[in-house]
Amino acid sequence: MKHAVVLLSGGLDSATVLFYAKEKGFLLHALSFDYGQRHKIELKFAEKIASSAGCESHRIAKIDSDLFHGTALVHDEIKVPENRNIDESIPVTYVPARNMLFLSHALSLAESIHSRHIFIGANALDYSGYPDCRPEFFSSFEKAANLGTKAGVEGDPFHIETPILSMSKAEIIREGFRLGVKYENTTSCYSPGKDGRPCLKCDSCFLRLKGFQEAGRKDPLIEKFGIDV
Amino acid sequence: MKHAVVLLSGGLDSATVLFYAKEKGFLLHALSFDYGQRHKIELKFAEKIASSAGCESHRIAKIDSDLFHGTALVHDEIKVPENRNIDESIPVTYVPARNMLFLSHALSLAESIHSRHIFIGANALDYSGYPDCRPEFFSSFEKAANLGTKAGVEGDPFHIETPILSMSKAEIIREGFRLGVKYENTTSCYSPGKDGRPCLKCDSCFLRLKGFQEAGRKDPLIEKFGIDV
Repeated sequence: MKHAVVLLSGGLDSATVLFYAKEKGFLLHALSFDYGQRHKIELKFAEKIASSAGCESHRIAKIDSDLFHGTALVHDEIKVPENRNIDESIPVTYVPARNMLFLSHALSLAESIHSRHIFIGANALDYSGYPDCRPEFFSSFEKAANLGTKAGVEGDPFHIETPILSMSKAEIIREGFRLGVKYENTTSCYSPGKDGRPCLKCDSCFLRLKGFQEAGRKDPLIEKFGIDV
Repeated sequence: MKHAVVLLSGGLDSATVLFYAKEKGFLLHALSFDYGQRHKIELKFAEKIASSAGCESHRIAKIDSDLFHGTALVHDEIKVPENRNIDESIPVTYVPARNMLFLSHALSLAESIHSRHIFIGANALDYSGYPDCRPEFFSSFEKAANLGTKAGVEGDPFHIETPILSMSKAEIIREGFRLGVKYENTTSCYSPGKDGRPCLKCDSCFLRLKGFQEAGRKDPLIEKFGIDV
């Protein structure tokens, strides 16, 4: 069996990708990050998801949050926008070079454990406008990865796997239900309560709500908190 | 004045690049890494160099060394090769995706502080055969960086600056003396003594010795330790 490194945030998208990789027969090595995010509670959700998927390993790597300035996802003094009109612009929740950092860690781990497959739950359709969620970024990262690693130059290349990149949120959710993802163990909110209760006002909550509505399903997380939407 | 992020290991190459960027008129933000390297003493050298160059800031970011398996630079059970015949092969001192990780951190910091220039003291001539020290890696990283960041997609691109990439070690050393680098504040050894005394047996010591010989200069570090070579 082949090993895969799967970036796991604790959110809906990466949880779905984890179960997707499982169905494809990979041995799963989940990788999450503590980068000073205000929604650090997502790491507890990530642990539950990793456990429910039967991962071989789950690491939480720390990234120095001193690197990031001016992002609402790390710094309390910048407010997470509520009820924003999601358009083409890049919001203040953008974290500089986040996916580059996450993928670099994943690449390093993958080469160390002889895995050549890195899964990331990025989505370029129902997303917040982040530049590092676009297909052209992932293909250029993959190219750089194969030029800058021992395995890559020795002809045993890495593959950046983005199975939900072109799916709508509703399609992701339908696929997740089919795969048996426990969505009550996932969180999407940028400003959750201490118990993980979603704010229902940020971009991420909005996209999740819309996704479940369009998929014609109830969100088990919303049901868990007894929220009426 | 423009800001530059300069990767600073505490070694000879990155110290030279730091002073090169200074001469070019950049305000300097040095970035070093604690990644569990056995030669962690290099961080003390990095502090001295950053201070002597008058850096605006110097950060030491921690990278989770659990990511790396099977590299002699992190794990004590793997021996650093002595008196190795430096050829085309990639040695056991290779750290998986190290420059990708370092540059990703630098990119994140650079975007945060509105710098568009990232300097790295990589060298593709007198080097140990690492794939992530080759020009094709840096150009592909730069491309990925500009596709995956806000600044990049908004037309204000990042530049990965590799001023000593094609220089021999002797040329780097001559340039460094011209720039006023204090080489006694730099370390190159993979297995230094607790006081920073070089082993004079590893690849890195060998390349440094050879470089000073070819440059027709005495190494101030060697003189500091009163070593007779």
